[in-house]
Amino acid sequence: MSSQFSARYPTLSSLTGTDALRNMSDAQLAALAAEMRGAIVETVAQTGGHLGASLGTVELTLALHCELSSPTDRIIWDVGHQAYGHKLLTGRLDDFHTLRQHGGISGFLRREESEHDVMGAGHASTSISYAVGLAEARRRGHGPDGAVVCVIGDGALTGGMAYEGLNQAGAHDSPVVVILNDNGMSIGQNVGALSSMLQRARVDTTLTKVREEIERAVSRIPGGDYMGSHIRDATKALWFESGALFESLGFAYLGPIDGHDVSAVRKAVRSAVHRGGPVLVHVKTTKGKGYEPAEDHIEAMHGATPFDPVSGKAAPKKPAPPAYTEVFGRALVAEADANDRVVAITAAMLKGTGLQYMQDAHPDRTFDVGIAEQHGVVFACGLAIAGMRPVCAMYSTFLQRAFDPIVHDAALQKLPIVFAIDRGGLVGDDGPTHHGTFDIAYLRSVPNLTVMAPMDEAELVHMLHTALTIDGPTALRYPRGAGTGVAIPTAPQALPIGRAQVLAEGERVALVGYGYGALIAATAADHLTESTGVTPTVVNARFCKPLDREMMRRLASTHDLVVTIEDHVVQGGFGSAVLEAVADLPSRVLTLGLPDQFIEHGHRDVLLADAGLTPKQVAATVAKALGVSTEGVAATA
Amino acid sequence: MSSQFSARYPTLSSLTGTDALRNMSDAQLAALAAEMRGAIVETVAQTGGHLGASLGTVELTLALHCELSSPTDRIIWDVGHQAYGHKLLTGRLDDFHTLRQHGGISGFLRREESEHDVMGAGHASTSISYAVGLAEARRRGHGPDGAVVCVIGDGALTGGMAYEGLNQAGAHDSPVVVILNDNGMSIGQNVGALSSMLQRARVDTTLTKVREEIERAVSRIPGGDYMGSHIRDATKALWFESGALFESLGFAYLGPIDGHDVSAVRKAVRSAVHRGGPVLVHVKTTKGKGYEPAEDHIEAMHGATPFDPVSGKAAPKKPAPPAYTEVFGRALVAEADANDRVVAITAAMLKGTGLQYMQDAHPDRTFDVGIAEQHGVVFACGLAIAGMRPVCAMYSTFLQRAFDPIVHDAALQKLPIVFAIDRGGLVGDDGPTHHGTFDIAYLRSVPNLTVMAPMDEAELVHMLHTALTIDGPTALRYPRGAGTGVAIPTAPQALPIGRAQVLAEGERVALVGYGYGALIAATAADHLTESTGVTPTVVNARFCKPLDREMMRRLASTHDLVVTIEDHVVQGGFGSAVLEAVADLPSRVLTLGLPDQFIEHGHRDVLLADAGLTPKQVAATVAKALGVSTEGVAATA
Repeated sequence: MSSQFSARYPTLSSLTGTDALRNMSDAQLAALAAEMRGAIVETVAQTGGHLGASLGTVELTLALHCELSSPTDRIIWDVGHQAYGHKLLTGRLDDFHTLRQHGGISGFLRREESEHDVMGAGHASTSISYAVGLAEARRRGHGPDGAVVCVIGDGALTGGMAYEGLNQAGAHDSPVVVILNDNGMSIGQNVGALSSMLQRARVDTTLTKVREEIERAVSRIPGGDYMGSHIRDATKALWFESGALFESLGFAYLGPIDGHDVSAVRKAVRSAVHRGGPVLVHVKTTKGKGYEPAEDHIEAMHGATPFDPVSGKAAPKKPAPPAYTEVFGRALVAEADANDRVVAITAAMLKGTGLQYMQDAHPDRTFDVGIAEQHGVVFACGLAIAGMRPVCAMYSTFLQRAFDPIVHDAALQKLPIVFAIDRGGLVGDDGPTHHGTFDIAYLRSVPNLTVMAPMDEAELVHMLHTALTIDGPTALRYPRGAGTGVAIPTAPQALPIGRAQVLAEGERVALVGYGYGALIAATAADHLTESTGVTPTVVNARFCKPLDREMMRRLASTHDLVVTIEDHVVQGGFGSAVLEAVADLPSRVLTLGLPDQFIEHGHRDVLLADAGLTPKQVAATVAKALGVSTEGVAATA
Repeated sequence: MSSQFSARYPTLSSLTGTDALRNMSDAQLAALAAEMRGAIVETVAQTGGHLGASLGTVELTLALHCELSSPTDRIIWDVGHQAYGHKLLTGRLDDFHTLRQHGGISGFLRREESEHDVMGAGHASTSISYAVGLAEARRRGHGPDGAVVCVIGDGALTGGMAYEGLNQAGAHDSPVVVILNDNGMSIGQNVGALSSMLQRARVDTTLTKVREEIERAVSRIPGGDYMGSHIRDATKALWFESGALFESLGFAYLGPIDGHDVSAVRKAVRSAVHRGGPVLVHVKTTKGKGYEPAEDHIEAMHGATPFDPVSGKAAPKKPAPPAYTEVFGRALVAEADANDRVVAITAAMLKGTGLQYMQDAHPDRTFDVGIAEQHGVVFACGLAIAGMRPVCAMYSTFLQRAFDPIVHDAALQKLPIVFAIDRGGLVGDDGPTHHGTFDIAYLRSVPNLTVMAPMDEAELVHMLHTALTIDGPTALRYPRGAGTGVAIPTAPQALPIGRAQVLAEGERVALVGYGYGALIAATAADHLTESTGVTPTVVNARFCKPLDREMMRRLASTHDLVVTIEDHVVQGGFGSAVLEAVADLPSRVLTLGLPDQFIEHGHRDVLLADAGLTPKQVAATVAKALGVSTEGVAATA
């Protein structure tokens, strides 16, 4: 497959290193751009992936590798999902068909994958900070003696960390070139004042003319010399208002430049590197450029599932129960219908969190704050103080950015905010920067917080309802992907806080699952009974905090073994909460969960099996711990 | 004491509610300002506290309460340590002498303390986000129908969350007034490009004149009407360049205004509220204003220890061993002397973290990035990629803001960064927003991270040295305050990674302490032996991750009881790590630590006693758990 694949892209195949790019003609570069687009579309059609962002940066990528000599010159891609072209140019053509496949190349950048991948991110808004670090190290004689250039999208620029980075670079006059890849989009439509401003920016010849006329007029005012520099400063703002913003922070500003014009971008990059000091190059690109389905369906083609490369139509999905995300989104609308205090907040994840249903039904009570999780949570605190019931819907992995506001703004002040945590556990192909495997640990140590997880999508509906009745902050986590297919309740019930649910009374061993772990427990119990004859007690914990301490102690006292199951690292997780509750009892507990390591990308089932968390594996592990013989259950390694 | 205190401030005492302020004459307001300063200096001289910030905002506070009607109008103070004047005007004069005393009023704002305290913060850069939340709720009919005004320092404005808040407010045209309290300082000298820009801003009459002349000149250019608005936009930048920055983000800009001129500030606030939409009022103040020692010694008087109110000289300290902070700072200089790759980063905490020694010895390898913890950590990642050995020195509670970069930028990429975590555990008078009681839980769940804590300041020196030998990220936590007085090693040793240290071999019970907990364990062991005759095994754990699993299992197998001791919440803490290691053994473990609640302000010894963590209390608890009788040991409640 690999050599067949490469053969379809002869110019790319014949490329040995990026130095060859420098002397290519415009026509050769155009041919290369076409091949890059072909390889990206062909591959992502098979594997799924971040299509639009990478198609939009093809010419930008070529221009950067033409002008810079990576890895001596450092090219840093914010997030990394726009860097498929960079991968193709830096020796990964032959493996490109393995994109996002288990054991294959990553959908983001990875330092282990190539010396051209300066850093391996996955969360937005970090590239400027990396660049300033590399530039300041170079000034002090550390690292290669080349230029430092980072590429950041206008979406990522809404993150406060990007501004913190600009602020330091400007103050230190750090020699960094920041390429603002402005496509007017992050995942969906961009939001925020900065974004509106960027959208207004275009090379406006009338404005240029006005500027020249002012300069002429001013030259006629007496006392010209003193005023000269002030006039220049002032007219910069006329030239382009976002220039003024970046210039206020100590950056020289170049742009806007057509990001699909390779030679224009090359010229700008050359000039920016040559200038020294902090320079921002504003490049305008079109997300999905050159592939009509991706230009037309920007949000769907941001993180695309496999599709037909000719029509752009998604491969037909197997019929599946509605996803947790969808169930949550619809349940939230129902809650908001019934209570006008309910309000929803997300951080550039409207569709990803299912809030598009809220947006449609209650646009005035739906806020997308952009890639700004910290602000989103504190904004919710403000809404709560005014008597509203905010629901912050974010992915587990991104909510990490709001840990401090969760502690000091929501929990310390006991504000009634619901954190609806999507993508808890393993997410699959997006890999280690997107798995949500630390949230139980960092949330359950926070006082005043209620922490829970449903075992299926019906319980999610009840739990959302429950959370909205609690007079304090609540975290509610659920996994990515399809639910179990159970009926969705039309009249959600408030569950008793801190009470676990016994699914089956049994003997010898108690399987206690949390969230998705309860589903695993229930099926593992069947396998265990089938293979060993042991009928375990099965418990759906529901709450991690407050934990049903009384039940956990009863289980520990009446069973030989308590087994906890969760799709989260064992360190500090749900199992750990159970251990704390029964520490003084002479009981045996087995805590099953994810290992203490970052987990690569791959299908969720594969990753669960790697962790020994399939129901059959769990049954085998339990049987072994009980010392009972099994028939028909595969032993785990 | 209370009535005597109040009697010294007759105008303040006679004030019943802030409405009375509105009709006061300038002379009366001036008298009030003088009394507020007197009450603040007199009190902080006794109690310690945030002196400079609150002295600098006396007139601003008066102006706000004159023009606004709190709590219908919402006044939000970023951080809250500049709001002592606000406390005095809103009914807390009589209790003011209890400032920061256990059971007394808080050194920050607290919702429980007064309806005028809209929110209770303690960490910087959150006020704009709160304000936008309140304003958007009000638009939708929730909360009181008044103005929303927040006060944020120029230091706090370096935090990315502030920018995220501005960005949303501008986009939504939210009716919020942001008062930029610009004193050119945060705790020490401010840093960053924004700060330099603000420092350049002053009401410059020459500039004003130039601006008028340009407008006249332009009016003579043909085609005036079309150009008019562009000219106005352009000349805004001339008027004041930081205006351009805020205006780019959708804010109207007013200023700069003399923040010690009550009527000028009143006028600006009135005009800003009347205008509607997002307005930024730039107010210039002098930190420590009106009290010479505080104006002259800004950093020392930021968070002042008790002092003589006349001379401003600090009360003589009892001789004490050097603080952990100081030992760390000096040890870091020694490491940096020996290795030119060592570089230090802090976030507006140069003195607080002991990095002033690095600043003096190696200014080119010392970075204060401002209140920007996220950026600070990612900046360190950039330095590490270039081959340097960054040491990020931050307080435990503030490092929470960098949790996501710790996970995805440092740990996932295995970058060799040392997190030197000061103020781990209880900090005392600053209270719940400053205690560092969650870091073990959120750090030990992160793969690839080494997590350790020294039992005394000598071990801190060894651990810093050890951390700098580890090829990956390391977190090293130590408490606030004086060390134990042990000799400081001159030749630091690399400790064996993941190995605990047995301090004493004993029987029946093993006391295992982590960090400061090991100190408690050692003394508790003596009490236990004295009172019960039991000689416990005592272990200094040193590492929480990797935990000395083998030793913990041995202890659990050879003792009736293992007791873990830490100055951290029990949920997910060190004790929990031990429980995980011995879960399958039929052993009894007692995990001692802080309770699952936010802990108020008060002296550390008092707070430790409240938590049952003094050595005597620990001995009594252990004796009870062992079922042995005690003599001379006070039983715990």
